[in-house]
Amino acid sequence: MSEKRTELSDLGEFGLIEQISRNTKISQASTLKGIGDDAAVLKTNSDQHTVISTDLLLEGTHFDLAYVPLQHLGYKAVAVNISDICAMNAIAEQITVSLGLSNRFSLEAVDALYEGIRLACQSYNVDLVGGDTTSSRSGLVISITAIGRVSPEKMAYRNTAQNNDILCVTGDLGGAYTGLQILEREKQVFLANPEMQPQLERNSYVVGRQLKPEARADIIHELADLEIVPTSMIDISDGLASEALHLARQSGLGVMLYEDKIPIDKETYDIIINDFKFSPTIAALNGGEDYELLFTIRQSDYEKIKNHRDISTIGHMTTKKQGYKLTSRSGVILDLKAQGWTHFAS
Amino acid sequence: MSEKRTELSDLGEFGLIEQISRNTKISQASTLKGIGDDAAVLKTNSDQHTVISTDLLLEGTHFDLAYVPLQHLGYKAVAVNISDICAMNAIAEQITVSLGLSNRFSLEAVDALYEGIRLACQSYNVDLVGGDTTSSRSGLVISITAIGRVSPEKMAYRNTAQNNDILCVTGDLGGAYTGLQILEREKQVFLANPEMQPQLERNSYVVGRQLKPEARADIIHELADLEIVPTSMIDISDGLASEALHLARQSGLGVMLYEDKIPIDKETYDIIINDFKFSPTIAALNGGEDYELLFTIRQSDYEKIKNHRDISTIGHMTTKKQGYKLTSRSGVILDLKAQGWTHFAS
Repeated sequence: MSEKRTELSDLGEFGLIEQISRNTKISQASTLKGIGDDAAVLKTNSDQHTVISTDLLLEGTHFDLAYVPLQHLGYKAVAVNISDICAMNAIAEQITVSLGLSNRFSLEAVDALYEGIRLACQSYNVDLVGGDTTSSRSGLVISITAIGRVSPEKMAYRNTAQNNDILCVTGDLGGAYTGLQILEREKQVFLANPEMQPQLERNSYVVGRQLKPEARADIIHELADLEIVPTSMIDISDGLASEALHLARQSGLGVMLYEDKIPIDKETYDIIINDFKFSPTIAALNGGEDYELLFTIRQSDYEKIKNHRDISTIGHMTTKKQGYKLTSRSGVILDLKAQGWTHFAS
Repeated sequence: MSEKRTELSDLGEFGLIEQISRNTKISQASTLKGIGDDAAVLKTNSDQHTVISTDLLLEGTHFDLAYVPLQHLGYKAVAVNISDICAMNAIAEQITVSLGLSNRFSLEAVDALYEGIRLACQSYNVDLVGGDTTSSRSGLVISITAIGRVSPEKMAYRNTAQNNDILCVTGDLGGAYTGLQILEREKQVFLANPEMQPQLERNSYVVGRQLKPEARADIIHELADLEIVPTSMIDISDGLASEALHLARQSGLGVMLYEDKIPIDKETYDIIINDFKFSPTIAALNGGEDYELLFTIRQSDYEKIKNHRDISTIGHMTTKKQGYKLTSRSGVILDLKAQGWTHFAS
């Protein structure tokens, strides 16, 4: 055949999304924001916007049932969607859950999955309001949509950071990626010798970060209490570097990160250094799935958060001309690049 | 292992949904209706409710790329979701589309799929506002969520029909099922002899009903113009019998259908009789995917629709004690049973 064929792997996920959104027109007055942020924003009334986000999780691509317990998987699937709602500075109120299940799943397995889903619903105070359940000829498919609300003046988009705004991040980074490395290693050990028990206790923090991440809904409430409206916000699903670049590029700005300010937990740090002989900074910059919040605030809000136990200030926004930079521990200024995650590997 | 194992095929899709919804609690004031209707209903302001519906379509379960063109698949995936919004008497305004794509898909194939999605967006005047795109290790996965709006006094639930209400259906039934039989037959012919060209022209109506069904958004506008608010409504995805039983059971009523009133298109009728030696009534009752609307109206509204070219009155609601019945063409009263579609076949 002489038909043109362009491989998806040549384009990448972001290239594909760009291609899709380029051809998308908005015609409804109720659509305030379409493709291009953590969630779509719909106008519902003058006091509240509705934000909607959706994620598709596929066995073999996003999770490996060899080491992911079904309860944890259910919990995580909800949490990562809630995280997208948080990234709009909104409060999630509802979710829908669609499942594609193969016949190798028993009712008891589905119950375990829903136990995790329900636990997350309780934990984040969201209602499970609908979904679709069907059989799958191949692996497990989980599609979740989360619906949240936020008042218009609190809305935090990706593209509204200003020059000199302070860049903040919640929690610590690199843990989920490190946990994944541990799980992959123990799986290989187990495959080679099924008598061996996995060594996960010593690594419980990082394994927990991978298997059961939390959305930072707590931070959204705290920011409201502190009367801080982030000037821009995104959640960290692909890695700090990738998300910082999103905020900078979409806001038409540059960004400066400081390596020594990047929060990395001690257990995470030690495991990366000792077990994997790797750079903890690289894990924080490029390891995904931490689901922490990355956001910018006005300098005038700095006093309100500077002593917050769970928010680190890690840099600031610059002009586009100044570019995307990282000041290393030794004071060298490096270009900030995103490895991110590419699912469309060839 | 001595762990209890219950097969999903023993439970069926409806059994599974019942099991899931039984354990689901609602805690948000904004959740007006959770699991159990065509869409969830959320309170957004006093003038408008938001309705949300989601569908998961999996290759091998819901479609066969051997005979489904990608444009049509994209169009249909949107239309079936819009249909769920219509079934609440609401107008769809936005959709999100998530895709799981394998590497065997080229960018050109994804473009073809989106061409269909975009055409449906134009046709139903909805905005594509978000989604998720990822790679799939197995088949194509499409997950769509549709968001619509309706004023509270126009809302049509499944469980609010009244005794003696008139049962109405739009369009004609059994066509999509018949189209599927044709496509399956031609696929077998093609597999046996790849030189043969498929004979689809003669069957273009039924093949079109299967490949490119339309949501009856036109009817929602017409009902508004006629000042009719259905007392209950559902869309026909599983077959007339299954959906009529849903309306009756969820409303705590019985139902009487009249075989001679069930609308069946002439082409559909002839193909079923001549090619498949089958009962057209059975195709209408149990063949799925027609995506017509089944609804009840007060007797006082009958005059407004009795001459409508595209709405048939096919029966009426009775008491629960009178049961679920079909009066055959010969006047015999039969029990109405749903075959529906069971994806969890063992």
